[in-house]
Amino acid sequence: MSDFSYPHFRFDLLKKDPHSQARRGRLSTPHGIVETPAFIFCGTKASVKGIYPSQLKAAGTQFCLANTYHLMLQPGADLIEQAGGLHAFMGWDGPLLTDSGGFQVFSLGYGSVADEIKGKRNRISSVQKITEEGVIFKSYLDGSLKMMTPEVSIEMQQKIGADFIVAFDECTPYHSSRTYTECSLERSHRWETRSFEAFDRHNNGKQAFYGIIQGGVYADLRERSAEYVNSMPFFGHAIGGTLGASKEEMYYVVDLARRHLTSIRPIHLLGIGGISDIFEGVALGIDTFDCVHPTRIARHGGALVPFALRDHSVREHISLKRASYAQDFTPIDPTCPCETCQKFSRAYVHYLLKTREILAITALTLHNVFFMNRLMQSIREALDTGTFQELRKKWAL
Amino acid sequence: MSDFSYPHFRFDLLKKDPHSQARRGRLSTPHGIVETPAFIFCGTKASVKGIYPSQLKAAGTQFCLANTYHLMLQPGADLIEQAGGLHAFMGWDGPLLTDSGGFQVFSLGYGSVADEIKGKRNRISSVQKITEEGVIFKSYLDGSLKMMTPEVSIEMQQKIGADFIVAFDECTPYHSSRTYTECSLERSHRWETRSFEAFDRHNNGKQAFYGIIQGGVYADLRERSAEYVNSMPFFGHAIGGTLGASKEEMYYVVDLARRHLTSIRPIHLLGIGGISDIFEGVALGIDTFDCVHPTRIARHGGALVPFALRDHSVREHISLKRASYAQDFTPIDPTCPCETCQKFSRAYVHYLLKTREILAITALTLHNVFFMNRLMQSIREALDTGTFQELRKKWAL
Repeated sequence: MSDFSYPHFRFDLLKKDPHSQARRGRLSTPHGIVETPAFIFCGTKASVKGIYPSQLKAAGTQFCLANTYHLMLQPGADLIEQAGGLHAFMGWDGPLLTDSGGFQVFSLGYGSVADEIKGKRNRISSVQKITEEGVIFKSYLDGSLKMMTPEVSIEMQQKIGADFIVAFDECTPYHSSRTYTECSLERSHRWETRSFEAFDRHNNGKQAFYGIIQGGVYADLRERSAEYVNSMPFFGHAIGGTLGASKEEMYYVVDLARRHLTSIRPIHLLGIGGISDIFEGVALGIDTFDCVHPTRIARHGGALVPFALRDHSVREHISLKRASYAQDFTPIDPTCPCETCQKFSRAYVHYLLKTREILAITALTLHNVFFMNRLMQSIREALDTGTFQELRKKWAL
Repeated sequence: MSDFSYPHFRFDLLKKDPHSQARRGRLSTPHGIVETPAFIFCGTKASVKGIYPSQLKAAGTQFCLANTYHLMLQPGADLIEQAGGLHAFMGWDGPLLTDSGGFQVFSLGYGSVADEIKGKRNRISSVQKITEEGVIFKSYLDGSLKMMTPEVSIEMQQKIGADFIVAFDECTPYHSSRTYTECSLERSHRWETRSFEAFDRHNNGKQAFYGIIQGGVYADLRERSAEYVNSMPFFGHAIGGTLGASKEEMYYVVDLARRHLTSIRPIHLLGIGGISDIFEGVALGIDTFDCVHPTRIARHGGALVPFALRDHSVREHISLKRASYAQDFTPIDPTCPCETCQKFSRAYVHYLLKTREILAITALTLHNVFFMNRLMQSIREALDTGTFQELRKKWAL
């Protein structure tokens, strides 16, 4: 397998920051170019909630993802294949990634999506049994028992047809012991090898494969996992598993994980999307990020704003639900070119939220998409011009 | 008052259909031109649900309305005035109309908006008492008692600042007796005169005033009401009150009401927006229509389609919730230029509805807005080219 190649994909490293591991790169895919560092927006159920593909594109979006777990349960991978694949199904013709489904199998219990929407945190794990073969879990839709294996995950992802697909692994929680993490790691490597073999059997050349590095918070396990993924003909690597319990620990673990990974492949950091986390991640050598954060906070009234416009020093967004915005006739961010900032005042968005108008969600989601894309654009420009450290300081990091 | 004029407004009659009362006209306002016959989209709470102003405009929308009743309770007319008026507040720079608030006072009971959303019909009227002075009603928001008078309605509408505002009247239900309808009619005329006087006291020249013709289903009362509104210096007339219990009765009552109205003023038909009703209304001499129908059915999965694409002969839309669309990979309407029809299949919209994705609402609302604007455009072109009767037949009317 060592001579495996991805003829329709490339990752080019364009520039390195002399003061950190930060790097400026370019991902080439059959659905276009992604300039990195880049943010991947979550279209969990084949839709970035409330936003048309044309609006995403006009906001500067390069890259989206959808979740295999949700799509395999509804509408089913077969239906998406019949529709001509995920790009055609959701009307987004840019690069797409699907995850393996593993994270949701391990983290979403039956009924917990509804709980999550209600802000409840008391999740019941959906996992019924983990064996060498795979995982038996309960569907979040109807509680029925399903089996997820590396082969199932890859079959689903091949039918769904995103540009980038991801190996199936076990996602260990923070409290896992070293012994459990090590056993899980070894099994995940076996699952990843089976994932790749399944991918290779039906590879049509239009998808590139990401391996996941696990190992929890343990340095030697992260190193062992890096050796494993480096040795496999993956196109890129994603940093998975627990990243620790605090920001400091997360940066430490990301550094541990990234340190031993080959530098010629793109590195994705799963599920991270805070502004300071992105700056730290870029500085640690991360090329792509994804997170529901920018679009999820939008649905709860949160607008991402430049540092100078924050209302709390600890929060990276302002909450338009606050009564203090009821008579604030200024835009959310006067420098933002999105329609929300160009046409609506904070008072109007506050009012839309209070009256539960659907437009509130669209307006804040689109603003936050613009914000993230402009942020990543500024990071790329700073790396191009050798001013990344100055940009970090502007964001008070 | 007979020499009252509206220097910033005009209504020009461009052409008449030789076979009906249908007419092609043009409304000129400080916020642009409205080619008539036209459809006015309902932005009840200062937002056409789920749609940006730019999307409305790109869909060919000429004219929107908002409801004084909702806006006076939340966010309040003062706040909209502070925001620079409704156009600035909601980011829509085209022509706007507000109603008097009377219809909601008389039809929406406390709690009934929620009931309405749930499809329940057991409304409790909000009206506590009707006196010569006005109406005491319960707020749908919190049940508190409020007084609505002609002077309050006009003060609110002047603060809100739409291009067109409407006289306050009593909206009588279908079951009203002739005696009650006559008493109510006379009081409504007194209220409309007080409305106009209130308007005239603070008129800034940027608003044009519509009088409402009442009279229920009674020919002589409709005639008496027409004589009254013709005698007042209104800019235009709106046909209000009950229009009967069947389509046939509605067309009869609209004809009764319109017959005696001066032909030089624009005539608006309140709350009517079905396709066949619009063709009949145009044929009876109506210039503008408004209705929540196209945008409301969208939120419940309904897509307006050309006659040939209907799935039931009696319904003017198809319901994308139906299981038969789950694997229909064709667009809703291949002739429609909206993004929904250009990028999404019926199967995808069906799936979005089933998973309760917000984009389902936006996608169907925008399609229906395009549909209505294209329908009205085709009616205007048919009137321009003398082919209105042929167009009616194409829609099997």
